[in-house]
Amino acid sequence: MEACGIIVEYNPFHNGHRYHVLQASKLSGADVVVAVMSGNFLQRGEPAIMDKWVRANEALDNGVDIVIELPFAWAVQSADYFARGAVKLLQGIGCKSLCFGTDVSETVDYEKFGRFVVANNQLIKEKYKELNKARVSYPQQMTAVFQELYPEMMLDFSSPNHILGLSYGKENAVYQTPMKLYPLKREQSAYHETTIHQQFASATAIRKKVLENELSELEQVLPKETYQDLSEYPLAHWELYWPYLRYKLNSSSYDELRALYQVTEGIEYRLKEASLKATSFGEFVAIVKTKRYTWARIQRLATYILHNVKKEEIQLVWEKSYLRLLGFSEKGQKYLKEQKKKVDLPIISRISKENKSFLDLDIRSGQIYQLGKETITEQNFGRFPIKSLER
Amino acid sequence: MEACGIIVEYNPFHNGHRYHVLQASKLSGADVVVAVMSGNFLQRGEPAIMDKWVRANEALDNGVDIVIELPFAWAVQSADYFARGAVKLLQGIGCKSLCFGTDVSETVDYEKFGRFVVANNQLIKEKYKELNKARVSYPQQMTAVFQELYPEMMLDFSSPNHILGLSYGKENAVYQTPMKLYPLKREQSAYHETTIHQQFASATAIRKKVLENELSELEQVLPKETYQDLSEYPLAHWELYWPYLRYKLNSSSYDELRALYQVTEGIEYRLKEASLKATSFGEFVAIVKTKRYTWARIQRLATYILHNVKKEEIQLVWEKSYLRLLGFSEKGQKYLKEQKKKVDLPIISRISKENKSFLDLDIRSGQIYQLGKETITEQNFGRFPIKSLER
Repeated sequence: MEACGIIVEYNPFHNGHRYHVLQASKLSGADVVVAVMSGNFLQRGEPAIMDKWVRANEALDNGVDIVIELPFAWAVQSADYFARGAVKLLQGIGCKSLCFGTDVSETVDYEKFGRFVVANNQLIKEKYKELNKARVSYPQQMTAVFQELYPEMMLDFSSPNHILGLSYGKENAVYQTPMKLYPLKREQSAYHETTIHQQFASATAIRKKVLENELSELEQVLPKETYQDLSEYPLAHWELYWPYLRYKLNSSSYDELRALYQVTEGIEYRLKEASLKATSFGEFVAIVKTKRYTWARIQRLATYILHNVKKEEIQLVWEKSYLRLLGFSEKGQKYLKEQKKKVDLPIISRISKENKSFLDLDIRSGQIYQLGKETITEQNFGRFPIKSLER
Repeated sequence: MEACGIIVEYNPFHNGHRYHVLQASKLSGADVVVAVMSGNFLQRGEPAIMDKWVRANEALDNGVDIVIELPFAWAVQSADYFARGAVKLLQGIGCKSLCFGTDVSETVDYEKFGRFVVANNQLIKEKYKELNKARVSYPQQMTAVFQELYPEMMLDFSSPNHILGLSYGKENAVYQTPMKLYPLKREQSAYHETTIHQQFASATAIRKKVLENELSELEQVLPKETYQDLSEYPLAHWELYWPYLRYKLNSSSYDELRALYQVTEGIEYRLKEASLKATSFGEFVAIVKTKRYTWARIQRLATYILHNVKKEEIQLVWEKSYLRLLGFSEKGQKYLKEQKKKVDLPIISRISKENKSFLDLDIRSGQIYQLGKETITEQNFGRFPIKSLER
């Protein structure tokens, strides 16, 4: 059997995602689609609107065969590390191809780009350093770097999905047998677009409507499972965790904050000061924001602080990779059985004495996610992969 | 001018406290009454029902001339250390006498008891150790110790106020010129009594009524200032801080918990487990409670954890004593001017660059107290001692 990988967050699962799954299967011709999905906290440093089990179930109901959790240490990261972790897990489980969305109109050869980066890694680093003095944003900087080094590719790093695609290309090219890449052009609904039209809408637009209690307007853009889940399950957002973040900042010394992951450059002073002034998470980020500290970067930093993540903890997970199964279809189960002997990474179906230590951060993340609402259920202990019946 | 000291919490200030202030003045014949008062967290490890400024103001309105804050590091402690800190500050500000409430019917010579303890310190420690094996409660143990060593005193350590009186006697006897002690027998309302009768009621009974929204029943047992304050100011209690305590326990490793003050003997495991099960602070304490870990001890432990108090921080405050002024009357101001040259301890009227470092724990405690309700005002920065006009 052959597998095509996809890298997802499903926040929440919508018709665009369903289209993506179908196209991944069609373009690759693979037997199964394997999704590596962020857990309860996401790439942009936000809590997921619904928990990982609910979202995994939606995916299984809509064509995904295997859902693997992208560990917190890889998921809550800038595009580069997010891609590195996800590609590592897809490679680990033997995927032959990777299908991902992109929102640039020109056709970019992501495989070629990946090979170029791997071959010229040192040169890119130096050029980046050289241009770093201008203190512009990361996307602007990277665009400038490649304009000098590889002008014929005409790369634009300003779109989040495109940056991810480029990162996938780069991380994939590192492997001896890279996956075949299938970029999929988004037809409608740019990443940040907030209006709803026809049967597609961006996840951002959907979350906005849901949190404004206008779920009924979303029936056409969501699979029926998601539509129902959004009316039944507890919904999370950052403001629910703001009191805990503020408490953590108020009660920690500067030394303690500096011991946390990515708290550097004196940002601890800005963070603590802002926590005393702000009356909401939105206000907090707005106070801390600078050209160098983008919204997403501050949210990730806030997520690390909320989770009390020490510098050495991330490294630990990076070194010890694992495949945490959230669910699978019957076809997915067959594929897993086939792969079992070939796979080097441990496949984890449940928390046990043996894996508890390196799953520590994911367990903690589940407990913290639960603090958002009384009705959010236990995320790890006693939970088993969802087995979906054949469609 | 001569001063009589009193040691108080005023949670909240009631008619019994008013009687105590008047008697302190009358029995001692002093010109001013100086109160050392716990800040926003109290001896039994609880948040005060109203903040320290509101309570200090009630005291000034009802006959107290000077209110000094007992720092967090002394206030949230078992009777011995609570007494040590309070007596130190009263000695520091030159009090010649100390008047305190007691609820035992027999007359106990607290001064004599104090001298006995100072002279036989080593013997008492050894006897305590010898009897410690039985693992009974502290009061039971101490009663047994003194039954053997000093039977004619017939000491009973089962009443909280009596224990405090004995501790005052002991701590006072250490000084070269001890204060004259005036024990004042409580006429009615034992410490834990919860019914309201006539013009006196215990603070416990009053808090219970207030938090059950039955303030109107309390008009006869409260001075008019307290009665008004309780209807106007934000009221705090432990359940408001429970989410933060739970988050702190959930997000901290066992190593991190062990680095906190008084987290020893493996209690960190019990605490963390209980925090995952309990749905309220009351439930949490009930789960953790054992014979050795009394309700008050667990509450104090919870308060240290909530405040993220490291082992070394308490020692720092103990070594660096200071007199933090919360308020004074005109007579109190005259006394302070007179004492200024004689006093060794720094007198602190406001937070400044110079005192910020050793006031750190008190500042943090104010910020954490504020997290209980949006309407609780800033407790330290920009706050000055209250000057009450002559009555």
